[in-house]
Amino acid sequence: MAMNNLNDLFVHFVRDMYFAEKQILKTLPKMAKKADSVDLRKAFESHHSETEQHIANLEKVFKMLDLAPRGVTCEAIKGILEEGSEIMEEAGDADTRDAGMIAAAQAVEHYEINRYGTMVAWAKRLGMKDAVKLLQANLDQEYAADDKLTKLATGGLNQQAA
Amino acid sequence: MAMNNLNDLFVHFVRDMYFAEKQILKTLPKMAKKADSVDLRKAFESHHSETEQHIANLEKVFKMLDLAPRGVTCEAIKGILEEGSEIMEEAGDADTRDAGMIAAAQAVEHYEINRYGTMVAWAKRLGMKDAVKLLQANLDQEYAADDKLTKLATGGLNQQAA
Repeated sequence: MAMNNLNDLFVHFVRDMYFAEKQILKTLPKMAKKADSVDLRKAFESHHSETEQHIANLEKVFKMLDLAPRGVTCEAIKGILEEGSEIMEEAGDADTRDAGMIAAAQAVEHYEINRYGTMVAWAKRLGMKDAVKLLQANLDQEYAADDKLTKLATGGLNQQAA
Repeated sequence: MAMNNLNDLFVHFVRDMYFAEKQILKTLPKMAKKADSVDLRKAFESHHSETEQHIANLEKVFKMLDLAPRGVTCEAIKGILEEGSEIMEEAGDADTRDAGMIAAAQAVEHYEINRYGTMVAWAKRLGMKDAVKLLQANLDQEYAADDKLTKLATGGLNQQAA
């Protein structure tokens, strides 16, 4: 795909995140199932619903761009999720697995925070005000999800794993 | 590798970041060479020196753990860097490439911010006070590098690419 200006980069990132969010949507139920802590399981479950909303918001952005929704393979999220599933498989006990899954999920959140942050800046520069609102809504929820995971980790789950 | 407690997870992450930082060290000169903006080139060059320091800090942490410095393949950073090099190759003009490289570099920074954030929390929990200081120093520099890139992007480079 040619990338000759900021609009091309923006379209590429919308597709990249569309692919990434769909991968995350598939992975969250597996993580919820493996979670030992009830609070952690609930956090993964509620982020699953939020992820559905993020995908719907991206579909609205595709519409604004007059494009059919289509993802492009995002090697970054594939690598991040692969590391997460390694930790899930290799953790020898439930508390260690919970602490490792939180870390893996926070790697996902930070990837998304970074991407949506860039996309909000680019949409502003491109004068796409309605897209800015949708992407900012996704960004805010990723920040909130990351904060919730930090609180779960420092609020007790790391201690149990130690 | 068995991961049966927080110490095992911590060691795994130290190795993961040791691999990641070495990959980043190899990539930064290529990015500096491709940068059109002098400020962006300088940012990549100065982060190269910082990355050498981060690697030295991780080697000190290995010593505290009584382990030889050794990386483990980090699929996440491989994916993130692969996406960055795609953007470098596919960008059709210098301004678009600069805007895309900033976004790629910020994906790297956020991966590191997330990992060092987790490692600082785990080192605290494990009572490794000297390791906390070294990892916090790396974390602070990654935050500063990310801020510098945001300022370069919003301070003019995105506008040039639009």
